[in-house]
Amino acid sequence: MGMRRGIIFVLSAPSGAGKTTLTRAAIERIAGLEPSVSVTTRAPRKGEIDGVDYHFVSEDEFRRLVANRELAETAAVFDALYGTPREPLERALAQGRDVLLDIDVNGAREIAQLYGQDVVRVFVIPPSFAELETRLRKRGTEDEAAVKRRLEQARAEYAAYPEYDYLIINSERAAAVEKLKAIVEAERLKVRRLRKGFAPWS
Amino acid sequence: MGMRRGIIFVLSAPSGAGKTTLTRAAIERIAGLEPSVSVTTRAPRKGEIDGVDYHFVSEDEFRRLVANRELAETAAVFDALYGTPREPLERALAQGRDVLLDIDVNGAREIAQLYGQDVVRVFVIPPSFAELETRLRKRGTEDEAAVKRRLEQARAEYAAYPEYDYLIINSERAAAVEKLKAIVEAERLKVRRLRKGFAPWS
Repeated sequence: MGMRRGIIFVLSAPSGAGKTTLTRAAIERIAGLEPSVSVTTRAPRKGEIDGVDYHFVSEDEFRRLVANRELAETAAVFDALYGTPREPLERALAQGRDVLLDIDVNGAREIAQLYGQDVVRVFVIPPSFAELETRLRKRGTEDEAAVKRRLEQARAEYAAYPEYDYLIINSERAAAVEKLKAIVEAERLKVRRLRKGFAPWS
Repeated sequence: MGMRRGIIFVLSAPSGAGKTTLTRAAIERIAGLEPSVSVTTRAPRKGEIDGVDYHFVSEDEFRRLVANRELAETAAVFDALYGTPREPLERALAQGRDVLLDIDVNGAREIAQLYGQDVVRVFVIPPSFAELETRLRKRGTEDEAAVKRRLEQARAEYAAYPEYDYLIINSERAAAVEKLKAIVEAERLKVRRLRKGFAPWS
């Protein structure tokens, strides 16, 4: 059981802030922090493994999961649907394990609504809007219209940062992981997370 | 001015938990964390420097400081009086600098009352009461009655840990400093500490 409940760490960031890389680095570098495996209706990309990278499901199956309240949050990105399964999250909380969710602002709201005090929300931004623009253009994978759309969306997402518990300004990747690590380690020491009846000196 | 207000970190622990050593190590190891220089009526010990280790004052001067509300908290330990000067604390808060206070449970309450959300309270305990007893006896500096008194006092202080924000179980000194460091670094990233009007992306 352990002395405390698990914690759900939610990481959100405007697109281009380096969230995916940071999430991957966090899972590698922060002991005891587990990834959540999302459900998605999109097709597997090369190298992706069902049940590891995602649970790949049909749209019908996705709708069934939503109807059965088996998803803690959902999001539509381009043509695909994504969701976070509730059962593994709730098992982790009960067993005192910590999970990292890489989700958007709306998803973060849904998770906070469901799990309240067991949720810690972290927002990651590049040092400036200009820096984000540079990063998005450097990728060179999208046309001008797509970059403009991403920038507008980033502005809108950015406006939600005051809802979050922590703000990481991501100027260097290594420093951002260290900051996230400090947040995880500190939250694990919070007195209010100790289980009722737990007595350090029994 | 900086993007955020300063933070007062309060460290309390039952006697024998290794608080003094931890405080010293924290000031050395945690960048930007400053010690608070207490006022005391006790005589300087060998090697102690006035204005560095303590501000040494007479009892009359101490009473004057209390009457003028120049102390944020006070404590009586054996025959001597101790207090934390307000002015340097409040300057640090306004300037966005962080201060570490090594004070008892009552002092922590007074500080929390005065500075509310700017205060982070950390309680440190040895892994068990039995371990504390071993440590106190190992010192060999006190007679049986004094050890007994310290143990009773430790039990009473321990009971206050639920009032604190964080609990550090001090099994190894190095680990305890790292935990305190994580707490300091995480608290510095809290969104609610950002100054009103501060916009990361202005």
